[in-house]
Amino acid sequence: MKTWIRFRNAHGQTGFGVLENHRITQYDGEMFGVSTPGANLLSLEDVTLLSPCVPTKVVALWNNFHALSEKLGKAAPSHPLFLIKPPTSVIGHGEPIRRPKAYSGKIAYEGELAIVIGKRCSNVSAEEADDHIFGYSCINDVTAAELLNEDHNFAQWCRSKGFDTFSCIGPAIQRDFDWRNAHVVTRLDGVERQNYPLSDMIYSPAQQVSLISQDMTLEPGDVIACGTSIGVGSIKDGATVEVSIGGIGVLSNVLAGGA
Amino acid sequence: MKTWIRFRNAHGQTGFGVLENHRITQYDGEMFGVSTPGANLLSLEDVTLLSPCVPTKVVALWNNFHALSEKLGKAAPSHPLFLIKPPTSVIGHGEPIRRPKAYSGKIAYEGELAIVIGKRCSNVSAEEADDHIFGYSCINDVTAAELLNEDHNFAQWCRSKGFDTFSCIGPAIQRDFDWRNAHVVTRLDGVERQNYPLSDMIYSPAQQVSLISQDMTLEPGDVIACGTSIGVGSIKDGATVEVSIGGIGVLSNVLAGGA
Repeated sequence: MKTWIRFRNAHGQTGFGVLENHRITQYDGEMFGVSTPGANLLSLEDVTLLSPCVPTKVVALWNNFHALSEKLGKAAPSHPLFLIKPPTSVIGHGEPIRRPKAYSGKIAYEGELAIVIGKRCSNVSAEEADDHIFGYSCINDVTAAELLNEDHNFAQWCRSKGFDTFSCIGPAIQRDFDWRNAHVVTRLDGVERQNYPLSDMIYSPAQQVSLISQDMTLEPGDVIACGTSIGVGSIKDGATVEVSIGGIGVLSNVLAGGA
Repeated sequence: MKTWIRFRNAHGQTGFGVLENHRITQYDGEMFGVSTPGANLLSLEDVTLLSPCVPTKVVALWNNFHALSEKLGKAAPSHPLFLIKPPTSVIGHGEPIRRPKAYSGKIAYEGELAIVIGKRCSNVSAEEADDHIFGYSCINDVTAAELLNEDHNFAQWCRSKGFDTFSCIGPAIQRDFDWRNAHVVTRLDGVERQNYPLSDMIYSPAQQVSLISQDMTLEPGDVIACGTSIGVGSIKDGATVEVSIGGIGVLSNVLAGGA
């Protein structure tokens, strides 16, 4: 029971289950609570993938990789630095990223590892943190880059990253995943643009969960985006961004043109 | 049907309804959907008030009053500047603000008007916005002030304002409210510390809803905190903060000591 997905079936109903060899065993109950395998076996081809979780918040880190920190000439932070992205920003694998109606500027991709919380947690230690992590996914932390520093007095992190469809999460949640040996690879229209090792993280997943749980209660299904590293760039309308992490899968989304 | 509240009754059940002369008519259904008055009449003394809504996000504005903008020497912004506070930060009237375990620094109050969204909205015009506002409440936008600029490269708005219990909302939602003629008054242990007119807002509630709905879909129950004006200060452990808006009511919360 390693790879969990959420999906919509041909009748428009939402379900979740375990994926193995392109076959889905649908589960009853709650993904982060009590769940039991049902009799329903589906083929991956017969469903539409959804974001594998429905977070109440996405906590997105900035400056969490040594390589990018050095390139930007910024000191490593003394605590995870983060912004919050709203639930309305979340889409799944295959859904289009939509350009905001009133924005014609540069839109950037950021391929990242996503931590998916499995149990409510507040003030947990780094040792306890792993027990509160359900699993891992890929996230494309999309940014309307020209809005970020539009106002000289206030960096607009939440606005530039908070638009509907700007948190692409998926394709699945992988429960057995060793981040220490994995790379995040981002491809733009098939061309590799990011390829960085997760071992270069400043704060490990367990440290992130522990420290952020001291700032706010984390709920089942909440997502922490672990921050990106070098290679961020802009997406042209119509281009496809793939965020790929070995052991998790490939998250693919197209930037649709003007809405 | 002007004053809406949410509450917990003596049996621990959550309900909502209309308050008039200290008597509550409990409603069935959904506050932001279809609801009908039930037979249940309660006395205000027999219930515990909860936050009058359960937002999926709190959008909190910075630099939205001319007086504070001038005092800080900052230009008025060309778009509402905001951060996002998570659902876990929300408490109601009478609930204690809790000092974060790992933080012994200054905690500030900010008395503000809260807009409560009634209908899902995306890309609405300022003319259409009022129809999407359910009503208004008071909010104390609490801040762990010393964390905000702890890192020189990244202003930690979401962290310093996102702690559990740092968005006090209530006591009620007022549907018939003329913000143009109201003041926000904040009292610290009974002493007036803020008293500013809402007519001094840079972006009106309708402009805020319209412009922010172009950044992200607003959901029923979501809250926009309209920003504060001059008179912000710190709360000592054990002190009581009252945010009072004529026509809405008095929101009162104590800062509890170390958790």
